[in-house]
Amino acid sequence: MPEPHTPEVNFVPDWPPGPLDAFREQSAFDFRQLKTVLEDINSLRLKYKIWKMLESEPLFAKIKPTPSVDEQKKIAAKQMMRVAKLDIVPPEVYAMGYLPRYRFLMSVNEALHAICPSLSIKIALGVGLFQNTLRAMGTEQHSSFYNAAWSREIVTCLAITEVAHGSNTKRIRTTATYDAQNQEFIINTPDFEAAKCWVGNLGKTATTAIVFANLFTPDGQAHGLHGFLVPIRNPLNLQLYPGVLVGDMGEKIGLNGIDNGFAMFTNYRIPRENLLNRTGSVNEDGEYMSLFSEPSKILGAALEGFSAGRLGIMQEATNTLAHSVVIAVRYAAIRKQFGPDKFGPEQPILEYQLHQWRIFPYLAAACVLKTSVYSLTDLYLKTIEKSQANSNGIDLLSQSVGEIHALVSASKPMYTWTARDAIQEAREACGGHGYLKASNLGELRNNHDACLTYEGDNNVLGQQASNWLLRQWVDGVESPMGTVNFIKRRKEILGNTFSSLSQRFEITSWQFINHCLEWLMCWLMQTIVNDMKVAKENGACPFEAKNNTQVYRAKDLSILYAEFYALSSFRLRCLKSDVATCLEPVLGLIYQIYGLWVIDRHMVAFYQGSFATGATFAESIRSNLLSSCRALKADAVTVADSLAPPDYVLNSVIAKSDGLLYQNLQNEFMTNPGALERANWWRDVLPFPKSKL
Amino acid sequence: MPEPHTPEVNFVPDWPPGPLDAFREQSAFDFRQLKTVLEDINSLRLKYKIWKMLESEPLFAKIKPTPSVDEQKKIAAKQMMRVAKLDIVPPEVYAMGYLPRYRFLMSVNEALHAICPSLSIKIALGVGLFQNTLRAMGTEQHSSFYNAAWSREIVTCLAITEVAHGSNTKRIRTTATYDAQNQEFIINTPDFEAAKCWVGNLGKTATTAIVFANLFTPDGQAHGLHGFLVPIRNPLNLQLYPGVLVGDMGEKIGLNGIDNGFAMFTNYRIPRENLLNRTGSVNEDGEYMSLFSEPSKILGAALEGFSAGRLGIMQEATNTLAHSVVIAVRYAAIRKQFGPDKFGPEQPILEYQLHQWRIFPYLAAACVLKTSVYSLTDLYLKTIEKSQANSNGIDLLSQSVGEIHALVSASKPMYTWTARDAIQEAREACGGHGYLKASNLGELRNNHDACLTYEGDNNVLGQQASNWLLRQWVDGVESPMGTVNFIKRRKEILGNTFSSLSQRFEITSWQFINHCLEWLMCWLMQTIVNDMKVAKENGACPFEAKNNTQVYRAKDLSILYAEFYALSSFRLRCLKSDVATCLEPVLGLIYQIYGLWVIDRHMVAFYQGSFATGATFAESIRSNLLSSCRALKADAVTVADSLAPPDYVLNSVIAKSDGLLYQNLQNEFMTNPGALERANWWRDVLPFPKSKL
Repeated sequence: MPEPHTPEVNFVPDWPPGPLDAFREQSAFDFRQLKTVLEDINSLRLKYKIWKMLESEPLFAKIKPTPSVDEQKKIAAKQMMRVAKLDIVPPEVYAMGYLPRYRFLMSVNEALHAICPSLSIKIALGVGLFQNTLRAMGTEQHSSFYNAAWSREIVTCLAITEVAHGSNTKRIRTTATYDAQNQEFIINTPDFEAAKCWVGNLGKTATTAIVFANLFTPDGQAHGLHGFLVPIRNPLNLQLYPGVLVGDMGEKIGLNGIDNGFAMFTNYRIPRENLLNRTGSVNEDGEYMSLFSEPSKILGAALEGFSAGRLGIMQEATNTLAHSVVIAVRYAAIRKQFGPDKFGPEQPILEYQLHQWRIFPYLAAACVLKTSVYSLTDLYLKTIEKSQANSNGIDLLSQSVGEIHALVSASKPMYTWTARDAIQEAREACGGHGYLKASNLGELRNNHDACLTYEGDNNVLGQQASNWLLRQWVDGVESPMGTVNFIKRRKEILGNTFSSLSQRFEITSWQFINHCLEWLMCWLMQTIVNDMKVAKENGACPFEAKNNTQVYRAKDLSILYAEFYALSSFRLRCLKSDVATCLEPVLGLIYQIYGLWVIDRHMVAFYQGSFATGATFAESIRSNLLSSCRALKADAVTVADSLAPPDYVLNSVIAKSDGLLYQNLQNEFMTNPGALERANWWRDVLPFPKSKL
Repeated sequence: MPEPHTPEVNFVPDWPPGPLDAFREQSAFDFRQLKTVLEDINSLRLKYKIWKMLESEPLFAKIKPTPSVDEQKKIAAKQMMRVAKLDIVPPEVYAMGYLPRYRFLMSVNEALHAICPSLSIKIALGVGLFQNTLRAMGTEQHSSFYNAAWSREIVTCLAITEVAHGSNTKRIRTTATYDAQNQEFIINTPDFEAAKCWVGNLGKTATTAIVFANLFTPDGQAHGLHGFLVPIRNPLNLQLYPGVLVGDMGEKIGLNGIDNGFAMFTNYRIPRENLLNRTGSVNEDGEYMSLFSEPSKILGAALEGFSAGRLGIMQEATNTLAHSVVIAVRYAAIRKQFGPDKFGPEQPILEYQLHQWRIFPYLAAACVLKTSVYSLTDLYLKTIEKSQANSNGIDLLSQSVGEIHALVSASKPMYTWTARDAIQEAREACGGHGYLKASNLGELRNNHDACLTYEGDNNVLGQQASNWLLRQWVDGVESPMGTVNFIKRRKEILGNTFSSLSQRFEITSWQFINHCLEWLMCWLMQTIVNDMKVAKENGACPFEAKNNTQVYRAKDLSILYAEFYALSSFRLRCLKSDVATCLEPVLGLIYQIYGLWVIDRHMVAFYQGSFATGATFAESIRSNLLSSCRALKADAVTVADSLAPPDYVLNSVIAKSDGLLYQNLQNEFMTNPGALERANWWRDVLPFPKSKL
């Protein structure tokens, strides 16, 4: 019998009775107990409230079959306007401090994303990112825009990427040239390759854009990239203003509710005041002035506000990961196929070792990443908060920005790739029924897919993280958050081997796992630094030398750093006093499975670096991983329950919480629009009759 | 300057001039020379002819944006009827022998699949698989159905899978009970879990189904699974016949042109003659009679005809793999981002080692699998041909069926997983633009995805292959095709180590690679057999013992067997006399890249089995893989060209053969329906104006 949960989580209802009960009864804890370890209770309460509210909103009902792309855009845009009226964010939120306010908004984003990813991204881009950018780069004079975005008086977007330049933002070619006579900036797009593109909200709905362009003063001097507030459409009728060529980019693999657009400007004039002038401004006469000696560096720090977007993606990716694995676990608990006796009962596919190994590491990963993204967000928000509270804020920020940026840049790829692989494994683990649109796995995949390359391409971001790590290795550790303090112990760490560690620690202990990961990070850094040195001695330029350390090395290093941080923060969460004793065994298993799985995926490097030789290392990691998976089986459904949102949000016909797999499929099949009717195009496809058969 | 190609390939036109020429000129061979090594020239000619024909058919024009699911079904059904009238398969094909005829039909399938996957699968299921099943299980009395399916007098489908049973076909629960009084079989579906489902063509169009059901004679005796011809709809008006409940399963992740259906039968009567009675029949009085002592075994052999479906999937998957990698290579050749000098020119992303490592192994895989699927198909067709030419055919087939089945069961998962990973890597390697629907990568992924679980779930199929391999290991080698003759040398092979082999062979030599793979297969078989023995000694039942050898072991073994066969058959193809000398270097690189990449992916097991210790093995494999990738760079675009179909078929705006990436994107953006227009739902989403901004 599970232990009771605390009354504070009563807003999370019991699951309906059904065939999953047989599994649920095997757990010694209530799923809500684990749920409140993995997630903040206030955030949970808010999400449940929002989900309940939207479940009864007609505009948020699921539509079958998939509406046309244009219809999807319309629905997302209408939802965006509707959400603003629902009072989801009451005025008192604005009286909160920075951290709780931001937490609140992030929870709202998570809640919306889990139901309508296009909608949440439209809001995140059009409100959140726009406001963050204004706050980071604008001044007092832009506050009316700030408020107008919030109240939906304007619909906004952010135009950075150009057709030929995404990752290398420094090569953006749009220009903004100051015209002193009219006190205006003139925006120009030199050619189609410099057209702004992929701008969410721009395609059909935005009225105002922040456009990034190279600022030129009348003397012909370039002053680098700046942001400009550019009116796009008349908010009264959504007509484009004269002189701007704006279009919708067309259908995408997913997220078709978002109207991604492109824009080309030809001598398009905006007022001087529309320059976001926190780091540098142009006076009436056309002189460029900056308070900072290195405005570009400051800009970098200010733009670190974009990390919030990446944290949002990580939260979303964690939910996507969680939902996929919930679907896979519930399906596997009910679906039976084959059994020990040819004529006897069949067994649930969850019983198969291969099946456990395919999905339990993702179940563990979902738990670990839930806690880790929370603590990473905390680090981030506290740093920003401190910088805002201090008159010397931007300098303070500069000090911590490296470590935060590295942590986020390492983690966003790791999170999104883990979710990508989890969705795919879940889809395959659910067999043919997983291929039904109604399983929701295809939607999860197609919508999630964009995360891998937007808000910083995963491979490019990862390189930024490894660059920072290597600087710590070479130049000495400067780690205000302590995430790489272990580098100071590099000598001791590199002296470890599998055989020395395994004498001191159990393979499944956190110490053993932790030591392994520290060793590998140190070994990778040492190896990379050495390889680069050799390459340079052999005549390679720094650019080439660095590029040639990515494969097997720097790429793995940054992923490992993210995994290490995730595991460490999960452990810290588990150690807190609010964690019920009855949860200890399952939390231990989750730690082991994720930790051993991580080691397994990096196994070759351990051999390559002679941390281990012979069969024992691989055998122990793998056999312990398999036995930890077997041990988790009894709790797997309850762990999935603790990750699961309400059925309305999970939205999968093969994984409803009642476990009535086949009854739910039957309803689905019988009630699909037109399922039982003759096609109304039957005349077009009649067979060619010759004889009666 | 490339060498000239032979005039016989003139039907493959030159590519249009453009920025890709700079790469093309680096190759010492013409892409057509390589093309005719990778593919049969007759098959190529036929495919080009079909593509040319369909390019001018209005019904085959690409429609933007994606039509509704119902519209997609209508189009595919219309296409199916239209194709029958186009004389793509002229009558003389039917005068051909089995092997050339089947080759012809398979090439037609490939050609259609590359343009309209739903269409080709509709035909493959409705004509090919139906006819194969009739031939394998039916007799003279069913020949009118055979012909009618071909001429589209009937539209057909094959109903095996039930809602609750896919992989475990032995547990199918639909019954067919003979009623001697009326000389009819009465078909019954006991409940929804036994409803037939996932039946392609059944949802809206099929008029006749082959339904698999358990045959019961009036004495109440069960005689196992048999096939029955069951009329579903009236071919004159597509009305369902009374007494059958048939519906469409609704939207899927992809392949929405196929009308997958479900069916439930309630006392549904069909004539006695509709039993497919090759292996067993029921006389008028209701007595069951079989020519065979073990009809179920014979049925198994007869059903091996289904392997043709898996071979078709492998051909399709190889094309999907090829198309994905062509898109990634062409995009990477044109797309520039960053460069050694901050202010100097940027370099094509193809120049980056990481990028090469991400996509070149798939480029090599596409080449290897093209040749390998051809030779595997040859093996298969020749065996079936022999069995048909011989009065003792079914016995002959039984002898070879094990090896063919193992080879196909190992290869179908390996091919489809390789293609899955290639699509995903290509999608990410093309950045944001890869997320455009018009890149075609999303369509490739969503359509391909079904292959991973249909026609035999990949994991279940792989287990059948490893079971056969283990029997060879334990019971002695019986390998009519010679694919596992190496097992006879097991002692010698297991005596090899990295250090002994590397003294005798270059790391990049075929001998070295071959020896490594042979070693690993032997080591895996030895280990699995041993593990199972230990498990049984410890009380595990055979079912459990086998299940617990899948992870890291049997699963890897069957993939490796497929990779080994692929590499061997690629090598044999390269050794043929028609291969031009100028191709030798590039074919060597392709072999090396694929071979080393395969070893790299199985690296841990080599260490685990103490084939290698220390850094050298991993370092040499990996550094050679990277340098082979670098060496391939100059030819990468030409290799991609040799895999590429015409632009109309590749259908990717970011990878047209003219290399005009940005011009093509510009056309796409500007001409998307409604791209530049104000949304007609603008009134619904007006901002909430308060002030003028």
